[in-house]
Amino acid sequence: MKIINYKKVKAEKVDDPQSKGVKIRWAIKKDDGAPNFALRVFELKAGGYTPYHSHKWEHEVFIKKGKGTLLWEDKKIPFREGDVIFIPGGEKHQFRNSSRGVLEFLCMIPV
Amino acid sequence: MKIINYKKVKAEKVDDPQSKGVKIRWAIKKDDGAPNFALRVFELKAGGYTPYHSHKWEHEVFIKKGKGTLLWEDKKIPFREGDVIFIPGGEKHQFRNSSRGVLEFLCMIPV
Repeated sequence: MKIINYKKVKAEKVDDPQSKGVKIRWAIKKDDGAPNFALRVFELKAGGYTPYHSHKWEHEVFIKKGKGTLLWEDKKIPFREGDVIFIPGGEKHQFRNSSRGVLEFLCMIPV
Repeated sequence: MKIINYKKVKAEKVDDPQSKGVKIRWAIKKDDGAPNFALRVFELKAGGYTPYHSHKWEHEVFIKKGKGTLLWEDKKIPFREGDVIFIPGGEKHQFRNSSRGVLEFLCMIPV
């Protein structure tokens, strides 16, 4: 068993040049013994964004705080606190913080 | 892609006689096309609890709101908003709402 407050997990800067103002906390990962999926918490500054890309694995997302826009297959879809988003593998997506505050969301992926 | 506010997902009463005051929302599940894991949101009334049990699959939990106590292998461990909990398969656990308010947490499991 592992218990930790997510704020105690190191926030690592995402260095991808196609992203901006993004930090990631790997709260539960393979090294913890997680056999199937990892739990990460993202933090995006105002105006920040993740890369617009696709990959073969899925995302399961929970918007913890703030609001933003999902660019999905060239469509803009607003989201806000409490929204749950499932992005199957192979679909293009980008998370944008379109607000003036911080955006935080959980994003789970297979290990 | 699926997007839905978790409050729009039907809160189903958990009928297990070893639990009390528990509702579950299946926000992302196998029927949505999730290939690896499901995202559920639990709601426990003040004084509510989940069964004290173990099973072969793991839990990955994020405490969304409120506070409570984890009974884990006969030890009592307090938790609060923002805590992340990983319970590997085979370990006995129970989530208790030891507060006067509502407790909400996300709990992901393999499908």
